[in-house]
Amino acid sequence: MSLSVTFLGTGGAVPSVQRNTSSVLVRRGGDRLMFDCGEGTQRQLMRYGAGFGISQLFVTHLHGDHVLGIPGLVQTMEFNDREAPLAIHVPGGRSRAMHELLDGTSSRPSFPVRINEVTPGTAATRAAEYEVRAFETDHRTASVGYALVEDERKGRFDRDRAEELGVPAGPLFSKLHAGNAIELEDGTRVESAEVVGPARPGRRLVYTGDTRPTEATATSAAEADLLIHDATFGDDHEERAAATGHATARAAGRIASRAAVRRLALTHVSSRYGDQVSHLEREAREVFDGELFVPADGDSLEIPLRDGR
Amino acid sequence: MSLSVTFLGTGGAVPSVQRNTSSVLVRRGGDRLMFDCGEGTQRQLMRYGAGFGISQLFVTHLHGDHVLGIPGLVQTMEFNDREAPLAIHVPGGRSRAMHELLDGTSSRPSFPVRINEVTPGTAATRAAEYEVRAFETDHRTASVGYALVEDERKGRFDRDRAEELGVPAGPLFSKLHAGNAIELEDGTRVESAEVVGPARPGRRLVYTGDTRPTEATATSAAEADLLIHDATFGDDHEERAAATGHATARAAGRIASRAAVRRLALTHVSSRYGDQVSHLEREAREVFDGELFVPADGDSLEIPLRDGR
Repeated sequence: MSLSVTFLGTGGAVPSVQRNTSSVLVRRGGDRLMFDCGEGTQRQLMRYGAGFGISQLFVTHLHGDHVLGIPGLVQTMEFNDREAPLAIHVPGGRSRAMHELLDGTSSRPSFPVRINEVTPGTAATRAAEYEVRAFETDHRTASVGYALVEDERKGRFDRDRAEELGVPAGPLFSKLHAGNAIELEDGTRVESAEVVGPARPGRRLVYTGDTRPTEATATSAAEADLLIHDATFGDDHEERAAATGHATARAAGRIASRAAVRRLALTHVSSRYGDQVSHLEREAREVFDGELFVPADGDSLEIPLRDGR
Repeated sequence: MSLSVTFLGTGGAVPSVQRNTSSVLVRRGGDRLMFDCGEGTQRQLMRYGAGFGISQLFVTHLHGDHVLGIPGLVQTMEFNDREAPLAIHVPGGRSRAMHELLDGTSSRPSFPVRINEVTPGTAATRAAEYEVRAFETDHRTASVGYALVEDERKGRFDRDRAEELGVPAGPLFSKLHAGNAIELEDGTRVESAEVVGPARPGRRLVYTGDTRPTEATATSAAEADLLIHDATFGDDHEERAAATGHATARAAGRIASRAAVRRLALTHVSSRYGDQVSHLEREAREVFDGELFVPADGDSLEIPLRDGR
């Protein structure tokens, strides 16, 4: 199953010509999940050909640069004659504010909009092969981060070994792969474990939204395939990061290192840095050995299955 | 005094990659006036280098594509440590909704924001050499258009004629130009009218926002230097225009023709037309002889003084 991420907006509270306010689009198979939706996000969707078929929107917190794109997005969905429901997940206690944001601008669509308050540590939503869990963040307002966690996949089926054991190709293969023992015509019993490898971990994608470095992030991001972390500031504004509820690139790198993530994306970059973001990468790299980068608006990346299949 | 217009957003209710939602910036000398402020307008200001020193914002109506950029704009002004007050003019009865839009997204700035309900037929604001008047429009919600109307300028001073009459260059020139009679040393009286031409009309710039064609627009736009008119649709959607409270390009052309305006800008173009807008120009041209165009986002134009000085 394909899993990809498109960075729709990688800027901080103030957008710039290069970086729009926060939004990340995740595509998993046919599902489109959006994380945050700052002002102008609908146009970013158009620019990057990302499409409007979003089924669920996960909001980390209700600051303007993370939500002001929602009323316009909903209005455009309405203009497009959308009928499918839209779920909007918000931190606890914030459903009323979200309703007001939608109502205050006459964004009352004819398709159903369900606003759901999430609880850190639990699943905000559950799909056939994955769930999206909320976790605690620390940003001077009600806020959460989100982890998309795929279910374990079945172990790999060793076809050669099965044939060696005399199992005929066909339905018995599926039965074994599904975890059942079988009996051959000669009465030999074959256990699933003889031909199926250990269950393979699913992929994990974590998005913090705005936050100081937190323990919950490190836990939620354990061995994540991709951690998208607040890195509003560099070392030059460490105190400001703490005071405003943000992280430095270095602090994000430390979290990534403790969580042993595979890739780290540094985002929510302050507009004060303009195009000069190499120091953010450099500072994070001093504490994190894995792959890391500062995505630009419109950048997309595939998250491969861990065993390459 | 320079007077220029920058089209920040020329699209309809749904933006496109080419056209953002509605906003027009008018610069007169050092004054920056904004008319409407759809989602993403702050970034358009950045893109087109238009600056954030806006003193007054004139809102035609409170549909999302005309106001959803305001909270983010205010937030960015706050980040920029703005101290100067900002006046936001809204149609009658809409100040509460505007407050809610600002409050709902934590956009409580430290600089003063004054929300002013305007009355059609009166001045929304009065400056040293011009005023901005509201006029009635017709858009299925509380709505107004705005006309920037410059004061008459003094007539031209005929220096040659003054010298012929024996007036010495200097303070007496100013006195005459200001409308006073003077007496020369030899007792000759010189009337102002002998050396000063008739008062020259100021410039007039009219922005409708969204509206069906209305009588009040034709009246307010009489001999305007520039009329920026709703032209959401072409002839192909004439009924839809009427039903949704908009104008066709042809209807805008008729208003321009009746008002004998100098230039007509067709805006709020429906996203359904994409880059194909030549039919809008063609249809309006069939009924209007003056200069007309469909501006693109970022287009700027100077409005010259009528006598070229």
